[in-house]
Amino acid sequence: MLCFSYLRTFLKQRRLRTLFCVQCLLDDEASVARILSVARTRISSLAAQLTTRTMSSQAVADIGLIGLAVMGQNLILNMNDKGFTVCAYNRTTSKVDDFLANEAKGTNVVGAKSIEEFVAKLKRPRKMILLVKAGPAVDAFIQQLLPHLEEGDIVIDGGNSHYPDSIRRCKELEAKGILFVGSGVSGGEEGARHGPSLMPGGSDAAWPHIKEIFQKTAAQSDGEPCCDWVGQTGAGHYVKMVHNGIEYGDMQLICEAYDILKHGLGLAESEIGDIFTKWNTGVLDSFLIEITRDILKYNDEDGTPLLTKIMDSAGQKGTGKWTAINALDLGQPVTLIGEAVFARCLSSLKGERTRASKILGGPQIKPFEGNKEQFIADLEQALYASKIVSYAQGFMLMREAAKEYDWKLNNPSIALMWRGGCIIRSVFLKDITAAFRKNPELENLLFDDFFNKAIHQAQEGWRRVVAQAILWGIPTPAFSTALAFFDGYRREQLPANLLQAQRDYFGAHTFRILPQYASAKLPEGQDIHINWTGRGGNVSASTYQA
Amino acid sequence: MLCFSYLRTFLKQRRLRTLFCVQCLLDDEASVARILSVARTRISSLAAQLTTRTMSSQAVADIGLIGLAVMGQNLILNMNDKGFTVCAYNRTTSKVDDFLANEAKGTNVVGAKSIEEFVAKLKRPRKMILLVKAGPAVDAFIQQLLPHLEEGDIVIDGGNSHYPDSIRRCKELEAKGILFVGSGVSGGEEGARHGPSLMPGGSDAAWPHIKEIFQKTAAQSDGEPCCDWVGQTGAGHYVKMVHNGIEYGDMQLICEAYDILKHGLGLAESEIGDIFTKWNTGVLDSFLIEITRDILKYNDEDGTPLLTKIMDSAGQKGTGKWTAINALDLGQPVTLIGEAVFARCLSSLKGERTRASKILGGPQIKPFEGNKEQFIADLEQALYASKIVSYAQGFMLMREAAKEYDWKLNNPSIALMWRGGCIIRSVFLKDITAAFRKNPELENLLFDDFFNKAIHQAQEGWRRVVAQAILWGIPTPAFSTALAFFDGYRREQLPANLLQAQRDYFGAHTFRILPQYASAKLPEGQDIHINWTGRGGNVSASTYQA
Repeated sequence: MLCFSYLRTFLKQRRLRTLFCVQCLLDDEASVARILSVARTRISSLAAQLTTRTMSSQAVADIGLIGLAVMGQNLILNMNDKGFTVCAYNRTTSKVDDFLANEAKGTNVVGAKSIEEFVAKLKRPRKMILLVKAGPAVDAFIQQLLPHLEEGDIVIDGGNSHYPDSIRRCKELEAKGILFVGSGVSGGEEGARHGPSLMPGGSDAAWPHIKEIFQKTAAQSDGEPCCDWVGQTGAGHYVKMVHNGIEYGDMQLICEAYDILKHGLGLAESEIGDIFTKWNTGVLDSFLIEITRDILKYNDEDGTPLLTKIMDSAGQKGTGKWTAINALDLGQPVTLIGEAVFARCLSSLKGERTRASKILGGPQIKPFEGNKEQFIADLEQALYASKIVSYAQGFMLMREAAKEYDWKLNNPSIALMWRGGCIIRSVFLKDITAAFRKNPELENLLFDDFFNKAIHQAQEGWRRVVAQAILWGIPTPAFSTALAFFDGYRREQLPANLLQAQRDYFGAHTFRILPQYASAKLPEGQDIHINWTGRGGNVSASTYQA
Repeated sequence: MLCFSYLRTFLKQRRLRTLFCVQCLLDDEASVARILSVARTRISSLAAQLTTRTMSSQAVADIGLIGLAVMGQNLILNMNDKGFTVCAYNRTTSKVDDFLANEAKGTNVVGAKSIEEFVAKLKRPRKMILLVKAGPAVDAFIQQLLPHLEEGDIVIDGGNSHYPDSIRRCKELEAKGILFVGSGVSGGEEGARHGPSLMPGGSDAAWPHIKEIFQKTAAQSDGEPCCDWVGQTGAGHYVKMVHNGIEYGDMQLICEAYDILKHGLGLAESEIGDIFTKWNTGVLDSFLIEITRDILKYNDEDGTPLLTKIMDSAGQKGTGKWTAINALDLGQPVTLIGEAVFARCLSSLKGERTRASKILGGPQIKPFEGNKEQFIADLEQALYASKIVSYAQGFMLMREAAKEYDWKLNNPSIALMWRGGCIIRSVFLKDITAAFRKNPELENLLFDDFFNKAIHQAQEGWRRVVAQAILWGIPTPAFSTALAFFDGYRREQLPANLLQAQRDYFGAHTFRILPQYASAKLPEGQDIHINWTGRGGNVSASTYQA
């Protein structure tokens, strides 16, 4: 007994959270055995901590990073450039030597060959970024780190974790007194090296400790860092997921524009490249338009565009799909991302499409006889308007998620974080930032004066483009769904009254009455069932679903 | 020891699956304790069975049904009409009395007031249909039934269970020697009473025992029952889920047609009702077109169509959403159901739409100056062609699910099951049945001569309608996405080559080369990464995802 009480005091002195309850010791043998086992674990953890402390004179690094793939290496070099001392660790430790001897040569980066050494080299509270493969690897590293950590240390997951995992990890670590941050990192290799978009969320208490490092490391846009605190638990990874979903949408819209220019107007890649060059100086000015320009202009050794030789089967790693599934679960009409994900699915059915192309025909596209300049200007507006819809849908989804998961999301900051550094960075996001700064409670992006005016100016050209693509037989799932959303969203009255009548007719699912038609027989706000046929019962459905 | 060996022999004689392994008895004390506990449970189960057996002279019913809501009552009366003796049970037993004294008066239906009595009244192997609320209630009833069942008895879940639950229940019950059937039941109250579509799947061994009851109870179409064995484990509920997803799509298409006729052509409900009356005699002949006609013609007491007074906020119970999520998970472009679900989501944002309608404008719709008859004929073709696409997508999804979940699905039977009795029943499904009977390995519905010809004949009118709706500003998300799918599916080459180039550019995600352009530098079938900018590294992405 003495032993435990001593241990408890010892733990208290060290300000370590105790896992013991002395009252348990009065209990049965099984409890004692359980406590002994916990004690054993805790003691070995203490031993590890003591080892770490003996090395505490080595605590030289402002932050540590685990995982030396391209993204990890580049992020370390970036933080080093901003004046922070970074400790690098990798499971395969030879990578640490390679990195220090090559990419990190001449920098202040220090290396570690073991978890103990890694933790020992970090200043307190310790800040550790994991940049490892999302999934079990993250949990495994957290388990390895845990015995060496102290209350208030900060574990940062900078990988592509799914937000429910980050919600779970945040709760688990907070219960142990450790702070957790799940941070979206966007910008690819280049972004990581020269300034990514960082979207951190998790334990609020962690933010003051990492703010300087994160905001200096992040991309800067008009003098402001593309990094701010997103919200609680899994909010950082959630917002990164929506970012990726929007990225899917933006890419699909660009592909559709390319397809229309190539097959509708019959333009060559270099001509289309010129159009993207021009678009990149206007409302569409963005990273994705810029790289599309580069891609269209990139010729293979034989002088033909490499693009035309690339297989048209799109890959995906799941973040767009997650966004679409989450939209369905939260009941938000995020149609453009949905169509973008499905478009990738369709593209990957290359064999089936090839067989289909032999037996399914469409309209013959004749040489374009209209005003090409006007049509290209219309197409620019179609792309712009569709983007506005897509971002409006994305913010609708985040608003609902904030309710669902109890987060306080900061819309202006989210727009600013996406403004630079990340894949969807654009001039456009500056206007979104401005819209949300002007009115942080803005119900919908389309309600903002700037975007309201923009979409009204765009809509005539937008309609002409989509109608023309349909007559040409060129698929524009993303352009079309954006327009359908716009036309549905601005309708007070949709034909869903018929749908409700059908559901009540065949399944007694009931309907409600429009307030202006309410009566004693058809009362407002109540579920009403009508015996449409005179045959069926008057009982409302209880188990049948449709 | 003797006690166990006796028990084991006793169990064997009774052909009951033993849960004991005598060798375990040689093991440690813990095992003995465990066995004792199992034995206690088993003995009380045996006691229950013995009670049941003493009542076995009461075993008069061919099948039992638990859950006396409208669907359950109607299904019982239906089975009774077909000559089967049904035992009815309900948790609130007063409902049994009510049912016997009213709806079931003068029939052969028998009632039970307890689970023991219910089981005792069933002929062996016992067949029990659960028609209770999907979810925990199903598991709870299964747990109540289990102690009274014998090897080979058949538990049938006729509720709206999600297929993963049916996969789990099938495995759990089979491990106990009990057969499981998860059966989709469609047709609403009317269908249940006079002939539903039944989609049973689960333990293959159950089918011969329930085939006669199921096939006689089901709707008949051209002399064939709309019921056949779907496949293994959760296949029955899966196919029902896809049915419901398709139902969402069909309903959305009809709503869009109604919207175009009302707001594009400016027709009144009664005129639109006439059009649906006519459509119901052609290729669109179906239950949903028929009830839409009835709804359009149904006037309130004041002589105006009740439809115009119904709130345009669509409800949903999740099966369409499940289908769309499953499509995303399996990577199949089931776009029409996706849009139909999102359209319901948008409709439910009534308040936000009302506010949006005040500040978002669209084109002014002028009186239609074209040929109305022609336009209405085009619209019929648009609806028809979109339906063909939707069903083609549904069968694509089921094909992938069969691979994923290891089911042998019978396409012609599925089409036949949907031919009559259910909500999507139609003449159209007769043609689908014929297509799959002609070629059960048909890769896609659009490859069948009949549908290939039909969609080619429809496409001109289809394009005219969608293009016109877009210019009018009338939202047609389902019509549009169906057309975009058709135009994408029939393309050997899609613009996803650009998407792959973008992904490689910003994230080093690699691409593949089209075989005809393969070279030593760009080898076929390999993941290729190009240094597009001359700046970034040559390392492929490993942790970054987009």
